[in-house]
Amino acid sequence: MKIILVGASGTLGKAIIAELGSRHDIIRAGRSGADVQVDIKDLGSVTAMYKKVESVDAVICAAGNVSFGPLAEFTPEQYAVGLNDKLMGQVNLVLAGQHVMNDRGSFTLISGVLSHDPIVMGSSAAMVNAAIDAFVLATAIELPRGMRINSVSPTVFVEEAEHYGAFFRGYKPVPVNDAARAFAKSVEGAQTGQTYRVL
Amino acid sequence: MKIILVGASGTLGKAIIAELGSRHDIIRAGRSGADVQVDIKDLGSVTAMYKKVESVDAVICAAGNVSFGPLAEFTPEQYAVGLNDKLMGQVNLVLAGQHVMNDRGSFTLISGVLSHDPIVMGSSAAMVNAAIDAFVLATAIELPRGMRINSVSPTVFVEEAEHYGAFFRGYKPVPVNDAARAFAKSVEGAQTGQTYRVL
Repeated sequence: MKIILVGASGTLGKAIIAELGSRHDIIRAGRSGADVQVDIKDLGSVTAMYKKVESVDAVICAAGNVSFGPLAEFTPEQYAVGLNDKLMGQVNLVLAGQHVMNDRGSFTLISGVLSHDPIVMGSSAAMVNAAIDAFVLATAIELPRGMRINSVSPTVFVEEAEHYGAFFRGYKPVPVNDAARAFAKSVEGAQTGQTYRVL
Repeated sequence: MKIILVGASGTLGKAIIAELGSRHDIIRAGRSGADVQVDIKDLGSVTAMYKKVESVDAVICAAGNVSFGPLAEFTPEQYAVGLNDKLMGQVNLVLAGQHVMNDRGSFTLISGVLSHDPIVMGSSAAMVNAAIDAFVLATAIELPRGMRINSVSPTVFVEEAEHYGAFFRGYKPVPVNDAARAFAKSVEGAQTGQTYRVL
């Protein structure tokens, strides 16, 4: 399969390459230093990416920014970061991709544990992650030509626990490869409309 | 209690007044023809509303616009309608209200069935409704001074089935008063972080 991977340079992106790279042709997409440049916040940029990378069988997103901070000080502008980037960025991949992806192609988006198991300072991540999972559920019944869509919703990773662990006290970290396997299940399996919780 | 009700003129708003109006002082808030004018999309307008209506014990929102349409033709601008209005409009009520509401006051937001039981053309409503429910779950653990927050997630109403029923074939409509009762449970009860599904 020819697979576009957005966010290839991160901890999760590298694990996805390690999991899928030997079996598939992975095109790394990102804002810089990738095989193809894309700013997922911009639908025009996403459309241009699909024009450059033709005949795509799967799109994986392992990227998306969200702001964290106390509710008492949070602003609409901080919520807009997550809504424009992690949410609408991934939506843009679907809006543009539905018209050009190969038959039976798949989208696999990234959400996260905070949708259903919140932490203090995580109200933006909570709303964005839940929105992504619901978007997947809803669009799975509309995508034509056998196209599929799923999301992967991981908890904090062992490999990043040093950086983020203080915000996730009591959350059991998972190896990032567990999340990479969930992406493989989505891409190489046949399910649609699913959220794979990696806990 | 002194209760601000946003969206008092709609089918649901009227039912909420019928349910709560005899026991509480309800201030109707809306874009026009209400006791106090507010555009919930604008945080400044929401802040001004709270300055006019002092000593608030509860805020209920029964308003929020979302666009509907086929995924194949949907645009980021159409998603922005729901994100800016139904989602961030209600978020604004909480951002501004958390600083001025009376101790143990409550926010009760409106979401809807499409978060978990989608229809064709409903991808925007799905994401927005799920985002609201997750926002409620997350902010319930941050609100100070005993303040509470819940959402009401109803299916289609008997009273509106004539208008919307064609989009909700097979969904059993509920009387709008069932949803109004869920708002009463939120306002007059003591739970927080809950989504009351009215199905």
